Amino acid sequence: MTTDPLVIFTPSGKRGHFPVGTPVLTAARKLGVDLDSVCGGRGICSKCQITPSYGEFAKHGVTVADDAISPKNAVEDRYDEKRGLKPGRRLGCQATIQSDVVIDVPAESQVHRQVIRKSAAQRDIVMDPATSVHYVKVAEPDMHDPSGDFERLQDALRNELGMDRVMVDLPILRKLQPALRKGEWGVTVTLYQDHTGAPARILDIAPGFDERPIYGLAIDLGSTTVAAHLCDLKTGEVIASSGLMNPQIRFGEDLMSRVSYAMMNKGGDQEMTIAVRDAISDLAREIATEADIPTDRIMETVFVCNPVMHHLLLGIDPVELGQAPFALATGDSLSLGATDLNLTGMNDSARVYILPCIAGHVGADCAAVALSEQPDQSDDLVLIVDVGTNAEILLGDKTGVLACSSPTGPAFEGAQISSGQRAAPGAIERIEIDPVTKEPRFRVIGCDEWSDHPDFASLTAQTGVTGICGSGIIEAVAEMRTAGLLDPTGLIGNAEQTGTPRCEAEGRTNVYVIHDDTANGGPRITVTQGDIRAIQLAKSALYAGARLLMDEKGVETVDRIVLAGAFGAHISVKHALILGMIPDAPLDKVTSAGNAAGTGARIALCSKTARKQIETTVRQITKVETAIEPKFQEHFVNANAIPHATDGFPHLTQVVTLPDASFNTQGQTGGRRRRRG
Amino acid sequence: MTTDPLVIFTPSGKRGHFPVGTPVLTAARKLGVDLDSVCGGRGICSKCQITPSYGEFAKHGVTVADDAISPKNAVEDRYDEKRGLKPGRRLGCQATIQSDVVIDVPAESQVHRQVIRKSAAQRDIVMDPATSVHYVKVAEPDMHDPSGDFERLQDALRNELGMDRVMVDLPILRKLQPALRKGEWGVTVTLYQDHTGAPARILDIAPGFDERPIYGLAIDLGSTTVAAHLCDLKTGEVIASSGLMNPQIRFGEDLMSRVSYAMMNKGGDQEMTIAVRDAISDLAREIATEADIPTDRIMETVFVCNPVMHHLLLGIDPVELGQAPFALATGDSLSLGATDLNLTGMNDSARVYILPCIAGHVGADCAAVALSEQPDQSDDLVLIVDVGTNAEILLGDKTGVLACSSPTGPAFEGAQISSGQRAAPGAIERIEIDPVTKEPRFRVIGCDEWSDHPDFASLTAQTGVTGICGSGIIEAVAEMRTAGLLDPTGLIGNAEQTGTPRCEAEGRTNVYVIHDDTANGGPRITVTQGDIRAIQLAKSALYAGARLLMDEKGVETVDRIVLAGAFGAHISVKHALILGMIPDAPLDKVTSAGNAAGTGARIALCSKTARKQIETTVRQITKVETAIEPKFQEHFVNANAIPHATDGFPHLTQVVTLPDASFNTQGQTGGRRRRRG
Repeated sequence: MTTDPLVIFTPSGKRGHFPVGTPVLTAARKLGVDLDSVCGGRGICSKCQITPSYGEFAKHGVTVADDAISPKNAVEDRYDEKRGLKPGRRLGCQATIQSDVVIDVPAESQVHRQVIRKSAAQRDIVMDPATSVHYVKVAEPDMHDPSGDFERLQDALRNELGMDRVMVDLPILRKLQPALRKGEWGVTVTLYQDHTGAPARILDIAPGFDERPIYGLAIDLGSTTVAAHLCDLKTGEVIASSGLMNPQIRFGEDLMSRVSYAMMNKGGDQEMTIAVRDAISDLAREIATEADIPTDRIMETVFVCNPVMHHLLLGIDPVELGQAPFALATGDSLSLGATDLNLTGMNDSARVYILPCIAGHVGADCAAVALSEQPDQSDDLVLIVDVGTNAEILLGDKTGVLACSSPTGPAFEGAQISSGQRAAPGAIERIEIDPVTKEPRFRVIGCDEWSDHPDFASLTAQTGVTGICGSGIIEAVAEMRTAGLLDPTGLIGNAEQTGTPRCEAEGRTNVYVIHDDTANGGPRITVTQGDIRAIQLAKSALYAGARLLMDEKGVETVDRIVLAGAFGAHISVKHALILGMIPDAPLDKVTSAGNAAGTGARIALCSKTARKQIETTVRQITKVETAIEPKFQEHFVNANAIPHATDGFPHLTQVVTLPDASFNTQGQTGGRRRRRG
Repeated sequence: MTTDPLVIFTPSGKRGHFPVGTPVLTAARKLGVDLDSVCGGRGICSKCQITPSYGEFAKHGVTVADDAISPKNAVEDRYDEKRGLKPGRRLGCQATIQSDVVIDVPAESQVHRQVIRKSAAQRDIVMDPATSVHYVKVAEPDMHDPSGDFERLQDALRNELGMDRVMVDLPILRKLQPALRKGEWGVTVTLYQDHTGAPARILDIAPGFDERPIYGLAIDLGSTTVAAHLCDLKTGEVIASSGLMNPQIRFGEDLMSRVSYAMMNKGGDQEMTIAVRDAISDLAREIATEADIPTDRIMETVFVCNPVMHHLLLGIDPVELGQAPFALATGDSLSLGATDLNLTGMNDSARVYILPCIAGHVGADCAAVALSEQPDQSDDLVLIVDVGTNAEILLGDKTGVLACSSPTGPAFEGAQISSGQRAAPGAIERIEIDPVTKEPRFRVIGCDEWSDHPDFASLTAQTGVTGICGSGIIEAVAEMRTAGLLDPTGLIGNAEQTGTPRCEAEGRTNVYVIHDDTANGGPRITVTQGDIRAIQLAKSALYAGARLLMDEKGVETVDRIVLAGAFGAHISVKHALILGMIPDAPLDKVTSAGNAAGTGARIALCSKTARKQIETTVRQITKVETAIEPKFQEHFVNANAIPHATDGFPHLTQVVTLPDASFNTQGQTGGRRRRRG
């Protein structure tokens, strides 16, 4: 039986016997306890702080004596004096074990600490960043055994961190000799080591111990907006968030028109590449200013984006993505230098990681959604819909995941809608229509009260009522259907058929007037037959895509549905089901994941394990190409009716009764198939 | 017993049985016969040409029937028609084995063909270049199984060439999709795969089969001159050679003054970096123009240089190299992109390989000499001296190699010599002094006749007699010693002591007048006492360095001596021994290797095996730092006498008798130690 003291670490519960005098950090490392240290146990970095517990521990069967841990030594005293240690705290590299002891590792001393996701609680991020900082002591040069300073730095990294091969770019190598001499042979190196087995790469070298934090950017590069989160790469904390419009919009609103621009204009793809790279650089500078950090502390950027944005970011002509067979130039994840993309606003050595694309229509943004929502880990069958100009759809569970993209067009974002507009103050975002009076009440962005509130006019005086945004048009169409103003084929009835003067004839079709302020020189906001057709096209495409995946999976229903995307967060589940955007499901099983793509980017930024995981997942996902599946067209046609021509919506029927009506007097039918975009 | 036909390849002698119908290329690959092919056996590249031999082969014990090889098929006929096959030649990928056959692989069909070094025959280069071109067929995209074009290219490279991982930079990736479509899914890729185990890298992609050759530059970057050879990377052939002055000369003639410039002037190192990189880019363009090739066909550049040039090329401040402990920033070999060094005049994707440095004073140029001369492979003990401003010295054999650098100063190059000049037309390069009359005769660069030839004056009318170059001053001093004009301590005797009026007093010392044309307004060329002292300092440093290595090796004599460097090629062995520049050795065992550093660069350019070899050798070389070895000073002082104060020169004595003399009337002694530079 050993007589060495027993050391028990909490919260891990790991335990072992160590000789008297063993530093706590050494014991932790031997047991594989997650205890941080960047200075190699020199009492400089203070990352290895621990809290010894004293007294009886019946649970562990030990009694900890008051002198179970060595008294503070000179190094600890100096640290305490200069920077202060919290009461009870000790430096794990200095405190040594004297007898049986229970030692708590506080969260902030853990390398792989968990960060709770703020926006939604579905998933925690375990910190495991590719980029980290380390203080190392380098041997001084010896004329009797000459070797390069960099070779001796490599030796130190090998001995202290177990790094086998280390690369460095010339501009950083240039810093090495002055830094070593200024730091008296101690330097802080910023190291990038990813999950691919590639050699570690030195991103920066600073003299002495440099405790400034380093940061990373998680960027969701959308066709319309570019959103970025600035994260502390040590803690995972989001320091600042910012966004801007994608400047490529001036070359075309939707993806297809940008691909066309590249096809029709020589060098057009490069114009768009420069535009988006410049915008990202500006965004990086802006967010650094907002967070009050120097841009050169941004050491990593992770991108998620659709395939066209992906190629334009990389400087690759997206022309092949605009025509069958929709071949990507490359779909694998990419590890690049910021300079490869001419990105500024971050450290010149900053690394870029781009998540893998799933297929020619299903991009790295969808991969990011899969990373965030993890359908491949789900016990029940989940349908994940990222609603945007194209909808990306994932369906699966632990037994397998399928993915496709469906060309919904921009109607869900309020585009191609007569009174449509982007979600901005003044836009109608909620609407209810009284099934008896057929009168509408609505709410606009920027005002908490409904339109039937006495103060509504004054409260909206600033913004006015300017149009309908994406979520508003969905509610409007669904409410029109529920109120009997719209028949299942999508026809708007006339005033006589519906019994309300708000249904007015306009040409050969009818419109429903939501708001008419023309008497005061304001707008007249209506839902036209053309609007209904646009929404029908969009929702049919979305539904047909989901249904196609269900066919492939061999199921008739799904257990739950996740609506991803900023838009998904604002959709009313009931109205989405009335419209038949998504397959029927229990209403409480339809949830919003917010900007899941952005969350996926943030997870990948904070964790190289997550990068490895999503790369594997993407390879395993079954890709379904809607364009060549004959059943897609069939599903698309059947989904044109509101909610659906043939599929039942039993869960919806439990909460809503949809009137039976038919306003077809002219033999009108559903719309034609819309091209992608 | 097998009934399959027997196939014997010559010249390798490899043999094996293969089923009837096996293509010759397939049989060659299975047997490991070196038979080239870049098109994957598609009958396009014609690299796999072979010559079947027919009839009785008693030596091999086979009889080859006339139909032992299949008749030409349509692919061969088409190739023969379009480009012509030499009589008897067949395409190895198309011709199939029908019965026992002897097949000759001509030299031009071998991948690893040997290239005979032109300048000197010591070593052949076996072609094994890091960069090579390959034609591959890539699978077309399939909507049912979507994958990126690059991923399918990787599959093709894996299947056809066994490449496990392949990298590509974005500007090249950008070319992939158009090239695949233009080349109908066949592309020619230029691949760089070095000896380090790093993933292969695609340097270029061209549509279809592109048979244009690719080239590499071997550059010897010296303090004074930059010399480059342009080589065909397939054949190893030197296509063109060119050189220019190192523009850094304007910042300082020698290395030490350039280091000083960097220390005294902020940003001075960067000025020098830009100057040399621009010069190299100019040189690359110039040599491409001379060879009439496009610069973008230059895919690789190999550099050899001393440590200060090395750091300045890399953009690293060389300040640490100017002071003890002479620490290199990095000494390991480097694999870089041309863009990392801002080099132009070559393909934007061109790779750069820099040989390893041996120590702070012993650079990649010395490593290149070691690669070319291979002391580590020598059975007898060889001393290799690369004479320049600094002398690099290697001593060793199979049991081990030592290296040092010795600060000879620039005297051997004619600098700091009163009548000294660079080797150029009009410079005295050879000299003899009659031991009886004490009269000189000499030869100048640019004229084949000696100065006592009746036509000499008219033959040199153009150039004149302008000064003494490095080899001339060595001969002059040695001849003065042999003729009794100079005593062993290095004192020039006066007219009375020497019996010739050519020994004239100048101040308190004497000079020897070689040539006086002042009557005609021409120069007066003399060897002064100061010149003798400068040569003594230089030769003492060189000798002391060699002697120090001999001490370390524990030997008193060496078996042979190799003089490397352009200067070494012009030194008279006898005179060098009289001077005591190098230790005594049989005169026929002292040879010149020409520009061994440049040859080493060319070997490394043509062979990745050689790169691996020299990296290993450099690590194994014992580095000796003359600056901290107390014995160096002792050797230096003893070596001041001509030829030496204590060491005997038995081999020299067999061919030359040196008169005993002493002209010391003023107590003059040898010179002081000169600083490095």
